[in-house]
Amino acid sequence: MEPGKLRSVGASVAAVLPAGGSGERLGSATPKQFCALLGRPLISYTVRALERINWISDIVVVVSLENIETMKSIIEKYGHKRITVVEGGMTRHRSIFNGLKIFPESKLSSCPLQKPEVVIIHDAVRPFVEEDILLKVVLAAKEHGAAGAIRPLVSTVVASSADGSLNHSLERASYRASEMPQAFVFDIIYQAYHQCSDYDLDYGTECLHLALKYCKTNAKLIEGSPDLWKVTYKRDLYAAESIIKDNLSQQVCVTTDMKEDAVQLGFLLHETLKNEVKQAKGKSVFLCKNDNRLQNIFLGQCYNFICINAKKSDIKETQQLVDILENARISVLHPVVLISVHLNVSENMSFSSGMEELAGIKEFAKEVKKKHILVYGLLIHYNKDDPKLQETINSAAAIISALIKDRNPELIGQLLVA
Amino acid sequence: MEPGKLRSVGASVAAVLPAGGSGERLGSATPKQFCALLGRPLISYTVRALERINWISDIVVVVSLENIETMKSIIEKYGHKRITVVEGGMTRHRSIFNGLKIFPESKLSSCPLQKPEVVIIHDAVRPFVEEDILLKVVLAAKEHGAAGAIRPLVSTVVASSADGSLNHSLERASYRASEMPQAFVFDIIYQAYHQCSDYDLDYGTECLHLALKYCKTNAKLIEGSPDLWKVTYKRDLYAAESIIKDNLSQQVCVTTDMKEDAVQLGFLLHETLKNEVKQAKGKSVFLCKNDNRLQNIFLGQCYNFICINAKKSDIKETQQLVDILENARISVLHPVVLISVHLNVSENMSFSSGMEELAGIKEFAKEVKKKHILVYGLLIHYNKDDPKLQETINSAAAIISALIKDRNPELIGQLLVA
Repeated sequence: MEPGKLRSVGASVAAVLPAGGSGERLGSATPKQFCALLGRPLISYTVRALERINWISDIVVVVSLENIETMKSIIEKYGHKRITVVEGGMTRHRSIFNGLKIFPESKLSSCPLQKPEVVIIHDAVRPFVEEDILLKVVLAAKEHGAAGAIRPLVSTVVASSADGSLNHSLERASYRASEMPQAFVFDIIYQAYHQCSDYDLDYGTECLHLALKYCKTNAKLIEGSPDLWKVTYKRDLYAAESIIKDNLSQQVCVTTDMKEDAVQLGFLLHETLKNEVKQAKGKSVFLCKNDNRLQNIFLGQCYNFICINAKKSDIKETQQLVDILENARISVLHPVVLISVHLNVSENMSFSSGMEELAGIKEFAKEVKKKHILVYGLLIHYNKDDPKLQETINSAAAIISALIKDRNPELIGQLLVA
Repeated sequence: MEPGKLRSVGASVAAVLPAGGSGERLGSATPKQFCALLGRPLISYTVRALERINWISDIVVVVSLENIETMKSIIEKYGHKRITVVEGGMTRHRSIFNGLKIFPESKLSSCPLQKPEVVIIHDAVRPFVEEDILLKVVLAAKEHGAAGAIRPLVSTVVASSADGSLNHSLERASYRASEMPQAFVFDIIYQAYHQCSDYDLDYGTECLHLALKYCKTNAKLIEGSPDLWKVTYKRDLYAAESIIKDNLSQQVCVTTDMKEDAVQLGFLLHETLKNEVKQAKGKSVFLCKNDNRLQNIFLGQCYNFICINAKKSDIKETQQLVDILENARISVLHPVVLISVHLNVSENMSFSSGMEELAGIKEFAKEVKKKHILVYGLLIHYNKDDPKLQETINSAAAIISALIKDRNPELIGQLLVA
């Protein structure tokens, strides 16, 4: 842990992620936390959001018995660390309680987990939680015993009479929606769960309520960002996938070798793309292929690469880049887009040999897709004296942006023309 | 109006759509009701959802002064009917009141609007409202004086103390979120607005509350579907766009001429696509080009067409289909996808002449895009004795599905290869 962060948190922190829900509101057979977004289960995104924060020591994921193996294979496949999988109970509260019980009351040599001072409780279906709000609820919990994120109400809340008619409506400004994450001094929430009734465990939904009722702890309420919303309906899966695609489109890296045409085209493409991605608050980087900054680009979470091949029919450089990407393992968590740009057209090549070449890219793209790298071909008529060159470059940039934005796995291996 | 529907409603019905909001929660300069989804403003989708229901006689859209011209041009561009645009007030309630005031108290010969028995109030930012729930709230309003759609709460609702800590939480099961549409006996809601205080007009948000407070009318609460949700945040725009794309992908129409190869390929493609779209609860239709059922297909809201051209280098048939689509005006409301399928490869054609041909499709596609028709080329190696034919067809179907699903305007005019 960075010393600064340790100082700012000043407590040992663990997290419990209840993920036992059945997702019935989604109208799908798969519980929503296991639905795939760009091929990866939603819960893996949420786990990753917590795992990357180094002051959270342990993450306890609570799933129903039938999903324990699924969860373990997700942890394995995506290389998640510091995770303990625990079997859930019949209800949300019982599942959270099971998650808390895994921390030993006293130090046992056989258990790798240590009881934390503060425990975060977060939903498995809120994948976009940021470090900022987690830190805020943890610090507030340390001070007040409990804390939770809230949001303004989007709709007025009404109470109905027994006959299904309006009884009264609440003044919207006086109430808030209770969201996640929440955090608690471990002993407070643990005691609250121990003391609460079966009715609470079976029908309750709100941890803050238990802390108040059984430990007289008035939780601090902290306004969170809209990103905290809970994936509940099918439309939320659509929204989440679009947000993830958006996040993945923020950076693009253009690589070339040292050949003059390739360098010039790379530079022009980079300049044009810069404007496109800047609108998305992202950036474009232009690199020669052997630049040792390439490793930094990977660490900077760049998931889009434009590889300019010097020769039209040669994809060696694209293959090299695939090897580098594979070694850096950056496509484990997210599909990487790799656009293989080819220059020039030899006028004398026959259409069928052009087709054979396309078949070559297609086969290559199919193989590489297994590694979560999506390869598309892009042919650019490059003639530096052509007065329409900028138009061609604009067209290329628009196609590149479209491919990056959609990340459509069915269009891999196609040769597009700018 | 159909006699059955008239009987079932049994009242004159108009609708008021408050659309004066500034959309500050969206974090965008454009108010959310005017944000474009597939190029068309959100409010146009909502207007269309009401306009298609023939027992709603008039639709009053209330917008702020600076958006009146924008709204009028939207009505003009998308051919909306039975719409009256009214200037809004400073708050939501004042805007709705302005909308209601447009209906004359007595019959004036100069005003084309007639005071309805029942008035629907619906948000401009809830585009997916169905006839079913509109009918339910109207009938309930007729009986009870007022009615509104509700949904279960997604989050627990909490009340905070002055110091920002939890005061109490509401039992989630006893409360509901008040959504839209709502409906009222016109005289009741009109009277409520006339009698209510300036405080109500400036700070209130709930029409059902006014009817209760000033007219002692306990509104009937009716459980609606999740589709009624309000587009509030940027993620909701993403979700709405995905839902629209999903809806547009439900049907695909394959057309061919009578040439044997084309008919066989068309049939195979249709059979393979049927399985793909069936999963989306949609359907695939296979037609010869001059079939008079084509007009029915248009009426059935099909927005995806596969045109199989007999000759590889010929796009005449695609051009004909574009003309038919244009005359049917089906691309006014939604972008239409048209995939121009070409068979065979002449082995002797040079790559550059292949490229010239591609340039032809590109230019054509660029022109046709202005009419909201997105043309993509698809080359299929067709040899009916090829043992790998089904594999090729599967690949073609996957590419077609991807193009239909993404509807990406930047990829038009490309020649993809199955």
